[in-house]
Amino acid sequence: MNKQDVAGIAEKARQAGLKLGTVGTVKKDDALRFMAEGLSESKAALFAANAEDITHAKKHGMQPAFIDRLTMNEKVLKSMIDGLNEVRALKDPIGEITKAWTRPNGLLVGRMRIPIGVILMIYESRPNVTVDASALCIKSGNAVILKGGSEAIHSNRAIVAILAAALEKASLPPDAIQFIDTPDKDVLYEFLEKDELIDLVIPRGGESLIRSVAEHSRIPVLKHYKGICHVFVDAGADLARAKRICFNAKVQRPGVCNAMETLLVHKDVAQAFLPDMIAMYREAGVEIRGCEETRKVVQDIKPATEQDWYTEYLALILAVRIVDSLEQAIGHINHFGSHHTDSIVTSDVDHSMRFLREVDSSTVLVNASTRFSDGFQLGLGAEIGISTSKLHAFGPMGLEELTAQKFVIMGSGQIRE
Amino acid sequence: MNKQDVAGIAEKARQAGLKLGTVGTVKKDDALRFMAEGLSESKAALFAANAEDITHAKKHGMQPAFIDRLTMNEKVLKSMIDGLNEVRALKDPIGEITKAWTRPNGLLVGRMRIPIGVILMIYESRPNVTVDASALCIKSGNAVILKGGSEAIHSNRAIVAILAAALEKASLPPDAIQFIDTPDKDVLYEFLEKDELIDLVIPRGGESLIRSVAEHSRIPVLKHYKGICHVFVDAGADLARAKRICFNAKVQRPGVCNAMETLLVHKDVAQAFLPDMIAMYREAGVEIRGCEETRKVVQDIKPATEQDWYTEYLALILAVRIVDSLEQAIGHINHFGSHHTDSIVTSDVDHSMRFLREVDSSTVLVNASTRFSDGFQLGLGAEIGISTSKLHAFGPMGLEELTAQKFVIMGSGQIRE
Repeated sequence: MNKQDVAGIAEKARQAGLKLGTVGTVKKDDALRFMAEGLSESKAALFAANAEDITHAKKHGMQPAFIDRLTMNEKVLKSMIDGLNEVRALKDPIGEITKAWTRPNGLLVGRMRIPIGVILMIYESRPNVTVDASALCIKSGNAVILKGGSEAIHSNRAIVAILAAALEKASLPPDAIQFIDTPDKDVLYEFLEKDELIDLVIPRGGESLIRSVAEHSRIPVLKHYKGICHVFVDAGADLARAKRICFNAKVQRPGVCNAMETLLVHKDVAQAFLPDMIAMYREAGVEIRGCEETRKVVQDIKPATEQDWYTEYLALILAVRIVDSLEQAIGHINHFGSHHTDSIVTSDVDHSMRFLREVDSSTVLVNASTRFSDGFQLGLGAEIGISTSKLHAFGPMGLEELTAQKFVIMGSGQIRE
Repeated sequence: MNKQDVAGIAEKARQAGLKLGTVGTVKKDDALRFMAEGLSESKAALFAANAEDITHAKKHGMQPAFIDRLTMNEKVLKSMIDGLNEVRALKDPIGEITKAWTRPNGLLVGRMRIPIGVILMIYESRPNVTVDASALCIKSGNAVILKGGSEAIHSNRAIVAILAAALEKASLPPDAIQFIDTPDKDVLYEFLEKDELIDLVIPRGGESLIRSVAEHSRIPVLKHYKGICHVFVDAGADLARAKRICFNAKVQRPGVCNAMETLLVHKDVAQAFLPDMIAMYREAGVEIRGCEETRKVVQDIKPATEQDWYTEYLALILAVRIVDSLEQAIGHINHFGSHHTDSIVTSDVDHSMRFLREVDSSTVLVNASTRFSDGFQLGLGAEIGISTSKLHAFGPMGLEELTAQKFVIMGSGQIRE
């Protein structure tokens, strides 16, 4: 793939996006139904393509967990099809007038939701992202350019052919789903220069992938590098509740971005709370790294260094710090955190409001587990990614975050004096 | 100013922004009132600083129009003070819960408006932008770093000192308004690298300034390069209305971005509409450049080249093209336009809806002048700039566009199963 191919793909996506942006919901939903049917009908071909990727991965000595994420079987195929049906059931955001008002001169001014245009999705091994991302982009009227991991290239190529055929069957432009059919990094970097043709880049994967995309991109990037999530157990908190939440936030699924990495405990409850809590963690195999005060309260705890406060473990390791006050907890979170997700367990309503207002994170919770920071859990119906920077979207992103709003104005001959 | 100074200024702004983001409206409004009082009380010092800029500009042989934009007199000062009072009267967007809903598990999920953080404003000669931009940023809880034109550096320095003192008087962090006190381009480029400390860049001025900012910035930039605005006069349009709108869109203030640059006319009304319309334009000193068909309808018209369709004249020049259909008009606008502002004059309701939906511009009007594409005219109460790209904001930007929304979640002990 050379520079001209890159420009050609981006231009085709742009033209297809312009068309897709103005079609009605019925056609888009038809396409999603045809996609589900296509995947189901082409099962054998899909599994054969996937087998090529798996053979290749095994030959290169990849770990079982990696092979597992890469594998398409009946269960994975069903979850892809379920995902398509769920997106089909979502309300089409396009064309919605989100507000409208009348000016003194009689002009009716409204904001209308429109697609963003062309979205470049960059992601790693799981082939289901190919389906999920395509479904969300098409439903919201956007064209999408897909760049999956090289390890899944045969699977992704086969999936994209089925998705594009479904667009055509629904009389929609098949060019609305484009696929970067090469593992060549320079080709990707070429796409990241095309800011006149591509409107948005969403990378999903490890921090190094995302940093490399952000560094090379001239196009806006919606991303989060990491989730250093905190739970703060306040003085006077309901400690049974606190234990349940803190256990869930760390242990229920430690490898994801909304799992807790640092536990902050108010000094007034440290003695009553930490010994039991840490015993529960130890029983679940969680390694504790504590501040000096923590190590006075519970025996045999590894000391936490400053680096621990900055670390996303994504594993059964937890940093614990005892703080003097709500202020110090908020200060710690805003200084060491990653603007992702943070929770307070408290019985004090003033503290809950201060925490909600002052913690500078995309999702802030009171008396609930950090694990709820997820598009599905929050009721967005979907999730295309999570943003920890404040431009355009902050927090989990659903269909609405794949739209913009234009001003539409109805007049009756008004001119400006 | 060296690299360390740049990092220091950006870091000070960041810290001040964190504080400013959580203060109540009363203090922010106090600061805006003290700013207005400060400007009024320091009139003599301001005019003296401004005189230095004017002397310098005259010595360098600047044009009278340039000197005029640079000059601060009683009228300009009054407009600055009026601007501060108007922003003070606007509703504070921060803390607003824009929507909230309950999940089946009882979690109350809401979106709360918060400031973006630190905004870098880059602009040219008018010193009033220093006041307007500061007022909007402070009201919306953002810190601002100001980079005005080098030709106004004495005026801006004097204004910023007064604004920062007003912040201090209101017990707000004076560091929330920072000033880049050097014309050195390399210093500006250094700021544009500070994506960890600065959240958003808004450049205002000529296309070359904006392109240079966009090229050097690692921080998201909200901008428009130019406004190639169209009016399309449809078949069956009320021609008296069409003339009024087309005249206003071109002639009322030709040097601004929402003035019309290209007039599109449906072939069925060209004969009835264009001779009178062009006579009106000629009387107002407008030079016409027409397509071949236009030149058959009216005598002595300069031929338009393809380049004319891409040109923002910002002057009393108008390109005119006769088109065969609504589709062709929309196609022309989406191909040659700049996604800024476009209007249709029509009596056909279906055509009005198609134009609103299909024209890919930030402001689309029916039966009204393009000159209404302006934050004040649309009722936003203010305007910090206009965006023609779809991320975060599309069209005129007011106070709300200087905010983000975080997820705030109230639970009662919920954990994820």
